[in-house]
Amino acid sequence: MNCKGIVSLVGAGPGDPELLTVRALRALLDCDVLVYDRLVGAGIVDLAPPTARRIAVGKCAGNHPVPQHEINRILVDHAMRGEQVVRLKGGDPFIFGRGSEEAAELRRHGIEVRVVPGITAAQGLSASTGIPLTHRGLATGVRYVTGHRKGNEPLDLDWQSLADPETTLVVYMGLANITRIAEQLVRAGLPADTPVLAVSKATTSEETRLSMRLGQIADRALVPMLPSPVLFLIGRVAGLAQEAEAVLPQVMADLPCSAEARNG
Amino acid sequence: MNCKGIVSLVGAGPGDPELLTVRALRALLDCDVLVYDRLVGAGIVDLAPPTARRIAVGKCAGNHPVPQHEINRILVDHAMRGEQVVRLKGGDPFIFGRGSEEAAELRRHGIEVRVVPGITAAQGLSASTGIPLTHRGLATGVRYVTGHRKGNEPLDLDWQSLADPETTLVVYMGLANITRIAEQLVRAGLPADTPVLAVSKATTSEETRLSMRLGQIADRALVPMLPSPVLFLIGRVAGLAQEAEAVLPQVMADLPCSAEARNG
Ligand SMILES: C[S@@+](CC[C@H](N)C(=O)[O-])C[C@H]1O[C@@H](n2cnc3c(N)ncnc32)[C@H](O)[C@@H]1O
Ligand SMILES: C[S@@+](CC[C@H](N)C(=O)[O-])C[C@H]1O[C@@H](n2cnc3c(N)ncnc32)[C@H](O)[C@@H]1O
Repeated sequence: MNCKGIVSLVGAGPGDPELLTVRALRALLDCDVLVYDRLVGAGIVDLAPPTARRIAVGKCAGNHPVPQHEINRILVDHAMRGEQVVRLKGGDPFIFGRGSEEAAELRRHGIEVRVVPGITAAQGLSASTGIPLTHRGLATGVRYVTGHRKGNEPLDLDWQSLADPETTLVVYMGLANITRIAEQLVRAGLPADTPVLAVSKATTSEETRLSMRLGQIADRALVPMLPSPVLFLIGRVAGLAQEAEAVLPQVMADLPCSAEARNG
Repeated sequence: MNCKGIVSLVGAGPGDPELLTVRALRALLDCDVLVYDRLVGAGIVDLAPPTARRIAVGKCAGNHPVPQHEINRILVDHAMRGEQVVRLKGGDPFIFGRGSEEAAELRRHGIEVRVVPGITAAQGLSASTGIPLTHRGLATGVRYVTGHRKGNEPLDLDWQSLADPETTLVVYMGLANITRIAEQLVRAGLPADTPVLAVSKATTSEETRLSMRLGQIADRALVPMLPSPVLFLIGRVAGLAQEAEAVLPQVMADLPCSAEARNG
């Protein structure tokens, strides 16, 4: 007999609650404890039973994140008490989510872990903008990279490898370093006129889109003004933005204030 | 007034019906016409109302696929009649799904297109095996490529770019060319002892897994025996298979007959 609870590592998707999977929804509706990243929207957290204990962890502007070892301890403690724990993360728990580190720690304690995948932010962006991640003749593949390094470690990405014009590049957590990333990609051979689409809060009612060319990013003082979270889609498919836009119901949101207007 | 129907391009996910998104499920439950790829499982097709017209298109062993222009015509015709059409594709419709080509064609006819993302086969594999697609210290990113080219066109992938040991590589549609792909990756500098996991029918009850090293693929006559569809996960994270396996409920399925046993 096993009196330990099970921990479900659940992907919450990019923000829109309708983009949860059916299995994720079931896990949420049925949990005793919900441990969630602050990035996960209220509309999703509200789906847990009113009786479920809600514990917010993870990063959020102005708040210190709960350290990873502390998150692990919370998960282990509740599972050891026999509770059904849902650990909810934005997007997919196994893509830039540190889900595998939590899973390993839980397994070390003999706790059963179930992984429920989630729609990634990149897929949410793709569906909501109408821009495909692959497309015959434009992109033979898609690649997700992180534009962030722990602490102040240098961004030691393989620029030569990344500068493949046949691949759609999605940069996660890239806001702080995007100017450097764009410069390095151009230096490594990606054409300066490669289309780029930056999308803030994709799939939510506050979604904001900004189209530009790779070579322009450095001049665009407005890029750092996009509210977090932001994804950068770099590659030929991003050039389909206009075409898709023309017929999609969503309209290109105007930034609250444009740096170009202000700076002349 | 618009009497045209709407076409929803819906991702069916990797196979397990519980991995549909809530929005995908809603679209399915509410359609007049369901146009689906033959790879999509019966458990999912059955979710459409009994009154919905079901039209199977797309590839399947032993059947000629319906040509793309014919699929487009079917979608346009039904939408023009004011019907709610669901175009259901395995995984995500905007990743190796030609969804964007269908969307463009529909828009040319002034038909509204909605895109509902789906869990990719790669994410299904990841959740079901417990292997993360990214992991600190093992993979700073993940990349999906296709191992298939139209007709007999040569596989002109950028091998140098692909041979990045820090990136998890997921090869879609790679069964026919995997030996060549492995050779080229090793030649381009990826270590021959890089772990590889081949997974057939991920997330279904017939899921089969095969672990090996990149340098061994050529010797493994059993690789082509894996029943389609198959994904290849190449990279350091694939080495976590054993660890994840040890505690996961699924057991490593035995192949019906092992080439090693047969060939000595
Ligand atoms: C720690 S990563 C989590 C990624 C997630 N596991 C996934 O599969 O998409 C957080 C980053 O994801 C991106 N992101 C998450 N949700 C987003 C959204 N709704 N719109 C734009 N970017 C988003 C941002 O780049 C953010 O910095
Ligand atoms: C035309 S692609 C469709 C990809 C899909 N749109 C996605 O997002 O995953 C078909 C290929 O996906 C892979 N695939 C799809 N479902 C799979 C499954 N359940 N298990 C393993 N591979 C799968 C195989 O490589 C197959 O050849």
